[in-house]
Amino acid sequence: MDVLGKSRTYTFRVRYAETDQMGIAHHSNYFVWFEEGRSNFCRDIGLPYGEWEKNGVFMPVVEVHCRYKSSLLYDEPVTMEVFPAERGAATVTFGYRLRHEDGRLAAEGWTKHAFADEQGRLIRRETDFIRRLKELTFSDKSSADSFKPAQTDAE
Amino acid sequence: MDVLGKSRTYTFRVRYAETDQMGIAHHSNYFVWFEEGRSNFCRDIGLPYGEWEKNGVFMPVVEVHCRYKSSLLYDEPVTMEVFPAERGAATVTFGYRLRHEDGRLAAEGWTKHAFADEQGRLIRRETDFIRRLKELTFSDKSSADSFKPAQTDAE
Amino acid sequence: MDVLGKSRTYTFRVRYAETDQMGIAHHSNYFVWFEEGRSNFCRDIGLPYGEWEKNGVFMPVVEVHCRYKSSLLYDEPVTMEVFPAERGAATVTFGYRLRHEDGRLAAEGWTKHAFADEQGRLIRRETDFIRRLKELTFSDKSSADSFKPAQTDAE
Amino acid sequence: MDVLGKSRTYTFRVRYAETDQMGIAHHSNYFVWFEEGRSNFCRDIGLPYGEWEKNGVFMPVVEVHCRYKSSLLYDEPVTMEVFPAERGAATVTFGYRLRHEDGRLAAEGWTKHAFADEQGRLIRRETDFIRRLKELTFSDKSSADSFKPAQTDAE
Repeated sequence: MDVLGKSRTYTFRVRYAETDQMGIAHHSNYFVWFEEGRSNFCRDIGLPYGEWEKNGVFMPVVEVHCRYKSSLLYDEPVTMEVFPAERGAATVTFGYRLRHEDGRLAAEGWTKHAFADEQGRLIRRETDFIRRLKELTFSDKSSADSFKPAQTDAE
Repeated sequence: MDVLGKSRTYTFRVRYAETDQMGIAHHSNYFVWFEEGRSNFCRDIGLPYGEWEKNGVFMPVVEVHCRYKSSLLYDEPVTMEVFPAERGAATVTFGYRLRHEDGRLAAEGWTKHAFADEQGRLIRRETDFIRRLKELTFSDKSSADSFKPAQTDAE
Repeated sequence: MDVLGKSRTYTFRVRYAETDQMGIAHHSNYFVWFEEGRSNFCRDIGLPYGEWEKNGVFMPVVEVHCRYKSSLLYDEPVTMEVFPAERGAATVTFGYRLRHEDGRLAAEGWTKHAFADEQGRLIRRETDFIRRLKELTFSDKSSADSFKPAQTDAE
Repeated sequence: MDVLGKSRTYTFRVRYAETDQMGIAHHSNYFVWFEEGRSNFCRDIGLPYGEWEKNGVFMPVVEVHCRYKSSLLYDEPVTMEVFPAERGAATVTFGYRLRHEDGRLAAEGWTKHAFADEQGRLIRRETDFIRRLKELTFSDKSSADSFKPAQTDAE
């Protein structure tokens, strides 16, 4: 999976509730972590996802994939890399890599998202808001500062 | 905890994802099961909770309690008893008992709910809809049949 | 994804706790449902997964995929088809299809599993137990009855 | 609920997956957060819970309670205060307070734990290890530094 936009890195620890009786983090939680990474990513480029929904733009998940390489354990510090990976006409794909503290790859995955309105209907037309979202997401120099003037210009 | 309304019983199995590395069902899941029991209870008395929300009546949780007596294990069949336990001016409390297949008590708990509108503001005034909800919930002879004429009468 | 073994069908309802603020079932839960389907499947062919672990055979997830076609809503009855889809040297893949009550496809996915021992080390050698698991899983006429004599024969 | 030991404070953000269709954090997640707070607390006093389990001491939950005062929303920064609240013969109780960024109380709760061995049998006898756990937990000057010499002394 190619890294098209700037990659950002977050760390977290595996919660006890996220383990299962095999003694490892349950595989369904990886998608919750990916989502938290995406959420941090959007906040950090100056576009908190909460703002999207207030603008009537929802980002439902349309497809996901994950490959598990090495189990993650309770309380283990995990490093998660988040990056924009594909920019479709009506979709955007994020990629993720999870690593143990020593740098070994624990898992890698991706999630593909559509843009939808509040009723869940796909937004196929690229609105100003979505264009800016995509530009910002895939820009190497993305920042809240570079975004705000653009927003002003458009109004 | 007194059983004020008719008690109803449901069975389910503990999911693998609900276990933790101690090899037992994680304690937070009990509230998800209680909620599913409440949901079944409301559907079975003819008042699916989805209908409440469509009528602008939400039932946020304001207080919960659970006592864990004996661990529940993966794939174990669990029997859950659900019953209305307290009827306040602006709240309703449900009680729950979980049992192993052999009848031994595994846990007991309760959840107290307020009535709120879509914006989360408490509904303090007892509307026709809420009065009927309470009557039906605490009635021994509650059924979809006894509810439907009452609804017609009130309109 | 090809259906190689006998397909089995289960139904369940979306729990309230499984919804998110978009008003739909959160995408991470689909893997919990797939797992419950797998668990039911194994029990129904006479090989409850709990027995595997007691035999020292664990089935960690090594790769997953899901395509979401149409959102699932709270309390909606969902039909889940579970089927063995691929039989590798050291892995087994299950496929899943979720449908709305009217038959429309809601999602389809697969999960690939390795066989591991209690310490999480892959079992590369095909033991008698694993061979029987695979045969039973991929058999069209799989049943508890057809399994039990085989088990006896092998001992 | 009295604060008997030193209180410690942690912050986190509400995950999207933790919201429900009411648009607020689902009540079951509070117990997952409490547990994460407990986990941080134990690590910060020099006694990571993972070490307990390696010493054969498990801390199953025997009773919980939570009062929800004001809903928590997606991505909201939450402050959680964790404190030891009660020290029984064979149990320990932790208290928790969750606050919005502006200091308003969002929820308060407690969780009561027993000490058990790997098979889930209660440890009624106060072992050296458990005595030290309790001392450290309820000590005002608890720290990894004050703990380590004590551990050395005992050996």
